[in-house]
Amino acid sequence: MSGQFAGGDLSRLRQLNTLAVVHALRHQPPRTLTEMARAAGLSRPATEDVVRELEAQGWVEQVDPAAGSMGRPARRYRFRADAGWVLGVDIGGHTVRALVADLDGEIRHSERQPVSPAVGRAERLAVVDKVVAECLAGAGRTGAEMWATTVATSGLVDDAGRVVLSVALPEWTGLHLAEHISRLVSGPVLVENDSRLAALAETWRGVARYARDVVYLLAGLRTGAGLIIDGRLHRGFARASGEIGALPELGWIRAQEHLRGWSGAPAGTDPDDVAGLVFAAAREGDRRALTAVRRYVKDFALGASALVLALDPQLVVFGGGFSRSADVILEPFRRELEKRCIRTPEVVQSALAEDAVALGAVRHALDHLELHLFNPGSGLAAPAAPGR
Amino acid sequence: MSGQFAGGDLSRLRQLNTLAVVHALRHQPPRTLTEMARAAGLSRPATEDVVRELEAQGWVEQVDPAAGSMGRPARRYRFRADAGWVLGVDIGGHTVRALVADLDGEIRHSERQPVSPAVGRAERLAVVDKVVAECLAGAGRTGAEMWATTVATSGLVDDAGRVVLSVALPEWTGLHLAEHISRLVSGPVLVENDSRLAALAETWRGVARYARDVVYLLAGLRTGAGLIIDGRLHRGFARASGEIGALPELGWIRAQEHLRGWSGAPAGTDPDDVAGLVFAAAREGDRRALTAVRRYVKDFALGASALVLALDPQLVVFGGGFSRSADVILEPFRRELEKRCIRTPEVVQSALAEDAVALGAVRHALDHLELHLFNPGSGLAAPAAPGR
Repeated sequence: MSGQFAGGDLSRLRQLNTLAVVHALRHQPPRTLTEMARAAGLSRPATEDVVRELEAQGWVEQVDPAAGSMGRPARRYRFRADAGWVLGVDIGGHTVRALVADLDGEIRHSERQPVSPAVGRAERLAVVDKVVAECLAGAGRTGAEMWATTVATSGLVDDAGRVVLSVALPEWTGLHLAEHISRLVSGPVLVENDSRLAALAETWRGVARYARDVVYLLAGLRTGAGLIIDGRLHRGFARASGEIGALPELGWIRAQEHLRGWSGAPAGTDPDDVAGLVFAAAREGDRRALTAVRRYVKDFALGASALVLALDPQLVVFGGGFSRSADVILEPFRRELEKRCIRTPEVVQSALAEDAVALGAVRHALDHLELHLFNPGSGLAAPAAPGR
Repeated sequence: MSGQFAGGDLSRLRQLNTLAVVHALRHQPPRTLTEMARAAGLSRPATEDVVRELEAQGWVEQVDPAAGSMGRPARRYRFRADAGWVLGVDIGGHTVRALVADLDGEIRHSERQPVSPAVGRAERLAVVDKVVAECLAGAGRTGAEMWATTVATSGLVDDAGRVVLSVALPEWTGLHLAEHISRLVSGPVLVENDSRLAALAETWRGVARYARDVVYLLAGLRTGAGLIIDGRLHRGFARASGEIGALPELGWIRAQEHLRGWSGAPAGTDPDDVAGLVFAAAREGDRRALTAVRRYVKDFALGASALVLALDPQLVVFGGGFSRSADVILEPFRRELEKRCIRTPEVVQSALAEDAVALGAVRHALDHLELHLFNPGSGLAAPAAPGR
């Protein structure tokens, strides 16, 4: 069995060893060389070799020995999660949110600001610029330090980061969102649909952490869906998956109208604010409100049933703004699903609610870095400012 | 970088090398050691070492040198695809089919027999037994030589190979199909939904070979769907995916009724035979037939649109018995999809038609073997009779 290693194999092996050590340190408390060697499945000399290089490159640093330890304690190392940063932005109809996180996904600062659903492109982008600037400042960072940024928007986006179609936001269709945000930060700027990013967040830090196949439902003033299939976000061939709402027969177009058109709201109430009043009245047992909720749930469940029947997911996550009213929605929703589906999956309320989208944007930006930095074949180099 | 290989690494490496050589030989014309070494990315001595062992085990054999070659030609080897066999069985409403194939998926014999949709469980199983026996005999093999068998049925099946629910076949629900077929063959017996297996066949030898995301539609006296997502068959958490037909709003329950209830058929025609007459009459321009086809297509396209909108596939395959009448169905079907979908994918007629299901069963049985025989971690042993 000798003679089977060519020269290229050795540098490839070196690279795999480097990544094994990085993986053994990331998301872990500081570790000794011996602990790293065991976790990475490498010999102690090989581990030491790799760690020395990672330390020189700035990926890894020694931590101070624990106070009060006797004798000469073994050196411990940690992965420098603050070697780089990512930014997640959620541009919603009512709110713009931004999060700055380190390479381990720790959120270092979050910022949000309300915005009227009626404002046009320029005004909304001005709010975005402000929220991003304040979030960066709050985290003590600059746009030049961001290694990757993901921006969430409703509607369809293309690979270049352009909004191909948005019915929810005025003057939004045709906007080159990636280009706009690129003026604020360094590094790649990715744009993705908000429901999809919320689904991603649920598998990361939400209720779908242990599920491989998930239908995420974004319930709010609009209804959307994000699909996790075999543990991965399913985008579709032209990034147009989850758009079941386009089929009038499946109820999502009219679902919210049962709430917006509720007759029990005081005259002059903004139609967008009626939903909250309906849920509150239903909670008190108001009959007209309960009827409106029942009609909403029936149409909402129709589209949801189509997704469940198509995919047979392990889990349905009920998310979005309306998930805060799960106490009046979830039980009738489960009953409607049971009426229509062959196998009714577990239905769980999102614990992230409106924060899911921005959190998913952070995860998405981190995934981009994982793919390009911490993956076999990436050829891990010293941390560099993005864009260089 | 020395000292990084433990003892276990070497035997692991040996195993990977063995599989690299097997992969370099399978589905290929006979190869010399030099050619194999290049294809497997191994040194010549390591390759020779592995080939000697594979030859001793019976996986690989030398082929006779080409006639008329000058001097002493280099030895050539081939993978022994006939070291083992698989069986695929398709139990349909109108026909039972069986295929015997070798380890490379070459079909060695096929057998089929018509069966009335009305017959009960015992009678249908008797036909299955007969078709399987004749197919084995026709291939010159015995049931004891089958390494894996996959049986296709309509309806829902569980992991143990039991039919959980079938509306299409009389007395079929509750049948332990795997147990029944296990009396005819050795090796594992797998049971899978027919639409799903047809989808698999299309990605193997059909029109979906180059697509990663596919919605396969089985159009016939019943309508079914199989989903290929990211290159893999999507089964769902409880193997209940693709069952969009259960939703009355999506048209698949009533779609065939527009054909079966056609008034143009001679009195006394079996309703199951009317569809063919309708398509023939539509082909001749008969107005009532064209109306029936249009209504069928509209309902068929409604459910198909829901799948397309949910998944945004690269490709829709139009398969099943009705795909033979694609000349009168496909154009109106495409138009209906275009009306309803945000992005209309390419729609292609199946070239396999009714053969797709049995072929998919063969592929499914082969996939099972690939997973357990030719995969890292399998610890490839000498070919053995199944069950041993």
